[in-house]
Amino acid sequence: MLNNDTIIALSTPPGSGAIGVIRLSGPEAITLTNQVFSGKNLKKQATHTLHFGLIKDGDVVVDEVVTSLFVGPKSYTKEHVVEISCHGSNYIIQQIINLLIRKGARAAKPGEFTLRAFLNGGLDLSQAEAVADLIASDSKASHEVAMQQMRGGFSNELKDLREQLIHFASMIELELDFAEEDVEFANRDQLRTLVQRINTVLQRLIHSFEVGNVIKNGVPVVIAGKPNVGKSTLLNALLNEERAIVSDIAGTTRDTIEDEININGVVFRFIDTAGIRETADVIEAKGVERSLEKMRQARLIIYMVDAQEDENEVIKQLEELSRQDTPFLFIVNKAELLSIAQQDFYKNHNALLISAKDKVGMDILEASLLEKVNLSNINTNETLVTNIRHVEALKQTQNSLNNVLENIYNPVTSDFLAMDIKQALHYLGEITGTVTTDDLLENIFTKFCIGK
Amino acid sequence: MLNNDTIIALSTPPGSGAIGVIRLSGPEAITLTNQVFSGKNLKKQATHTLHFGLIKDGDVVVDEVVTSLFVGPKSYTKEHVVEISCHGSNYIIQQIINLLIRKGARAAKPGEFTLRAFLNGGLDLSQAEAVADLIASDSKASHEVAMQQMRGGFSNELKDLREQLIHFASMIELELDFAEEDVEFANRDQLRTLVQRINTVLQRLIHSFEVGNVIKNGVPVVIAGKPNVGKSTLLNALLNEERAIVSDIAGTTRDTIEDEININGVVFRFIDTAGIRETADVIEAKGVERSLEKMRQARLIIYMVDAQEDENEVIKQLEELSRQDTPFLFIVNKAELLSIAQQDFYKNHNALLISAKDKVGMDILEASLLEKVNLSNINTNETLVTNIRHVEALKQTQNSLNNVLENIYNPVTSDFLAMDIKQALHYLGEITGTVTTDDLLENIFTKFCIGK
Repeated sequence: MLNNDTIIALSTPPGSGAIGVIRLSGPEAITLTNQVFSGKNLKKQATHTLHFGLIKDGDVVVDEVVTSLFVGPKSYTKEHVVEISCHGSNYIIQQIINLLIRKGARAAKPGEFTLRAFLNGGLDLSQAEAVADLIASDSKASHEVAMQQMRGGFSNELKDLREQLIHFASMIELELDFAEEDVEFANRDQLRTLVQRINTVLQRLIHSFEVGNVIKNGVPVVIAGKPNVGKSTLLNALLNEERAIVSDIAGTTRDTIEDEININGVVFRFIDTAGIRETADVIEAKGVERSLEKMRQARLIIYMVDAQEDENEVIKQLEELSRQDTPFLFIVNKAELLSIAQQDFYKNHNALLISAKDKVGMDILEASLLEKVNLSNINTNETLVTNIRHVEALKQTQNSLNNVLENIYNPVTSDFLAMDIKQALHYLGEITGTVTTDDLLENIFTKFCIGK
Repeated sequence: MLNNDTIIALSTPPGSGAIGVIRLSGPEAITLTNQVFSGKNLKKQATHTLHFGLIKDGDVVVDEVVTSLFVGPKSYTKEHVVEISCHGSNYIIQQIINLLIRKGARAAKPGEFTLRAFLNGGLDLSQAEAVADLIASDSKASHEVAMQQMRGGFSNELKDLREQLIHFASMIELELDFAEEDVEFANRDQLRTLVQRINTVLQRLIHSFEVGNVIKNGVPVVIAGKPNVGKSTLLNALLNEERAIVSDIAGTTRDTIEDEININGVVFRFIDTAGIRETADVIEAKGVERSLEKMRQARLIIYMVDAQEDENEVIKQLEELSRQDTPFLFIVNKAELLSIAQQDFYKNHNALLISAKDKVGMDILEASLLEKVNLSNINTNETLVTNIRHVEALKQTQNSLNNVLENIYNPVTSDFLAMDIKQALHYLGEITGTVTTDDLLENIFTKFCIGK
């Protein structure tokens, strides 16, 4: 984890565009750029200023550029940072990066700028992780959660808990120092109350992962039902409407992942629906273990029947469906073929009546999907855990604190008490990076994109 | 061509990345950004400064960003320009653009920033066109030519010619004003010398298009030869070597167009080689008009034979090949199978002996390709025309000037003389945009990418 050289990378997506931005960070960022920049002497310019000039490789003009100067520590990485905004040609970008590498810069590894920001105290670890989440965010909800985490909401909540624990840990350490004298600096009742309060918070945070994960990765949904009831027609109808919204602004259309739709800011992800479609009569054919497994992964099942199916058959399917744990939406397709009596019958069974082909009833379906996952009343000011690493650390913290509670009134085990509290502090510290290892850091930052 | 509103677009390539840059230009660029920016009051900041802050939609934090402030006319477009450097998530980019459009900005059309730079006198038209060429440049040569044009090399050369012509035009206009008096303000011998000198320059520029076009669009090459002599093996060998070079720096690999290779900065483009491969015995089967057409489009033919072919047959093919105009490289593949006598025989016929499969002789082949297209001795300080529109305008100028030469000593036709000189001035002006129409501008700038 050397931190004293100057790194360089393209920070904008590769490909042709109007401009590309090349970022340098490190002690020589300004000096190196200045060597190839013909314009003002960058070494003499104030921080947070922009300078037009040429990048020259000897006598050859590589490009006309604008350089942004961030004099450390007033930068993202807390080091000297220069951003070179050049014409968005890969040829030019490559030339400029090569040139500066020849002058002494080193190609940055993925996430290395953010790693430096962390190592230099600009961000804690959970904030750094939120930067990657923010870049990957593709819905209102995932964006809000990542933004809140990046802006330190989660970190602050943990910091409070940690500080109170640290206080008790030091009191108990004191007791150990005076072990002969049998004094009690740390009031056990207060400690117990604190640990219980912390455990409540931990429990809430751990529990929030269920929602946080869904927000970050989307709600896994399965569309099930017998063959030819219109499952893929429904999926296409949902996808088409969504695509029209996504591609509203030219140039910002994201690479749409098939079978993923965004309804009012919540992403619904249709897991392996092709497989499910093939074994669509899964509810009846109980043996189809693989498909059932898929259904268990789902947070929601859309169960679809055809208006022309026998009503008693349908009721049987519904009963089967009710026996498993995953919540489901019951949908009758081709509803235009239903008699009034049939309509009433199905409505009494909480069915949504739709026509996937004609896109009738899609608005009610979308509203029901949102209602079923019940994300609408999430308080986005409340911290949500979205990262499996954080959940694991929180659970470990909880384990240690449970040990604390077990030993709390046993004077013989003050040693254990101190150890368990320290352990809890360790795990809490892992989340924000107060406690860290090179392996952990490498594991986190290699998942970043280059240039961040 | 309204120019008084404020336009906005993503200026970096779409897709996920560390950062994205959104650009605004127009009278309200700073005011609009300031409305959604929580940080310093941007309206009170100096030009060429950088400001960290939040983009907020009401109370919702959309992103932490850095804004770059260019107070007009000290900007690319000569208007107020703000660049918002945000996290490279399409969701965030879309949110920020939507927000500013709601506040009153308008989505920019392709090339509209550069169009404004042109309309406001920041660039002339040929320089503006060079910006697009620069972004598209993918080789040393195309980059150099575009850079020279963008930096005004071509424009300056035309400007000189134009000014001299304007002088004569005004003298002849004067003569027309005093037509009754039969005076001669414009010395005809001097005019003739000038026009001839200009014609020489025009001729050189028009002629330079042959090279300029090749540099911009690549050298069209056809690999021909009988089936199974190893043509696709050769192409793959050439492509593989190139790809290794191109992908040297992670993240900057361009979207490689199949069958295009870059040798020492010159791009060789293999035109429809698949088709040629199918009708590979094109030299013998004279009737295959379509393939011959392809060969005529080529600037160079690589003609390949197998070492095991009958030597007399090969000589016959060579004779056929020599009868057409396109230069060719004669290659014997699987050369490891040749006897010493055969080797000497083929060398006497200027053959290159290679083994495509084992990549033997590729360096000599590449050197020969470069030698054949003879681009190595191009003086890159000499202006090269790369744009068909410019060539057309230059040819029209030349036509008008030839009319001038025809009428030059005929006192009766001073009117025509004045008209022809004006016509020549008009066509020269079309290149730099001194003379222009909305249609022409639209035609040029719609080919740009959005955000430039």
